Amino acid sequence: MILYDYFRSSAAYRVRIALALKGLSVKHEPIRLRRDASAQRRPEYLAKNPQGLVPALELDSGAVLTQSLAIIDYLDAVYPEPRLVPAEPILAARARAVALTIACDIHPLNNVRVTSYLETEFELREERIDAWRRHWILEGGLEAIEQSIEAAPFCFGQAVTMADVCLVPQLYNARRFGVCFAHLPKIVAVDAACADLPAFQAAHPSRQIDAE
Amino acid sequence: MILYDYFRSSAAYRVRIALALKGLSVKHEPIRLRRDASAQRRPEYLAKNPQGLVPALELDSGAVLTQSLAIIDYLDAVYPEPRLVPAEPILAARARAVALTIACDIHPLNNVRVTSYLETEFELREERIDAWRRHWILEGGLEAIEQSIEAAPFCFGQAVTMADVCLVPQLYNARRFGVCFAHLPKIVAVDAACADLPAFQAAHPSRQIDAE
Repeated sequence: MILYDYFRSSAAYRVRIALALKGLSVKHEPIRLRRDASAQRRPEYLAKNPQGLVPALELDSGAVLTQSLAIIDYLDAVYPEPRLVPAEPILAARARAVALTIACDIHPLNNVRVTSYLETEFELREERIDAWRRHWILEGGLEAIEQSIEAAPFCFGQAVTMADVCLVPQLYNARRFGVCFAHLPKIVAVDAACADLPAFQAAHPSRQIDAE
Repeated sequence: MILYDYFRSSAAYRVRIALALKGLSVKHEPIRLRRDASAQRRPEYLAKNPQGLVPALELDSGAVLTQSLAIIDYLDAVYPEPRLVPAEPILAARARAVALTIACDIHPLNNVRVTSYLETEFELREERIDAWRRHWILEGGLEAIEQSIEAAPFCFGQAVTMADVCLVPQLYNARRFGVCFAHLPKIVAVDAACADLPAFQAAHPSRQIDAE
């Protein structure tokens, strides 16, 4: 399998964690989002992923899967150990809800393509974009997640789920953007528990071949 | 079950379609997002859903599920007929990817809380917000989805999937915002095929008890 990847993409980081937890090794093909903005728009890549975003996972059959949470669900179906979506439907819904809060309500408002639009089309200055990022990361985002998780020691008990796989990359982004979440003790505890696991360590942006 | 709902929320509309396809009836409890912006911020509702968004589904046990795609996956696990997430993993990943493109990359950039921020915090005028909406609905959104689906007659063949359940409400939003998608023939065909189904008709915003 080939993972079209970018070290700093928190969506790609989710998939790297899932692959590492399942012990799957893939070829990493970096798509440099910032250094070469046109890389995503190259016809060869758009033919694989019409959205031009990362991550995308190319299977050995040549089929290309897109959208990080869809890729994680695919991996969970085909390589079920360890399960990242719990088997019990209500627990699965809770883990999915945390993952989706991050993937739908926090991350899209903070990613490069959107903040670039704010800069170039709306001509907003950096401090206003920082306030925008902080607002969506905390309000209705991490602050709501804090009320939904257990931290025992992971988001939902003793096993890592899709919730942890999405939370840790979002916390990496929060730090990058200088957004403090120290007032959210359960989130801080989950982050620390995950940091001890080799799979989370191996997937960290600083450990990727394209890290700057 | 109680669905915390808002007639115009495209996320709630997705869950209404899924419930109707599965023949499930629920009590609808409208949370009026626009007329009474504070309704989402009432402590009683925040105790159920810390994000303060709709939809939320309260089960007969009192458990409350949030995030439309997590709710649809829950319904699919507990009431599997008809299946909205295909059993075959690659097809499931394709249907999920379309649903997530809408739920992560289009809808969050166009919903009320975000466009309200653009209006009030960034003091942007209506025509610039219209351009923002159009950009995210089309580019990397519906235009990418057009290349990923079959329209035969639904997004992925003869059975409705989670992709169709998310696409139709997003097209309703596109029309509301005056965004034309007539140049995307597969999307137009899927929309027409779904419009013939009683479940999609029953879930339409105009048919809800809180419709204005």
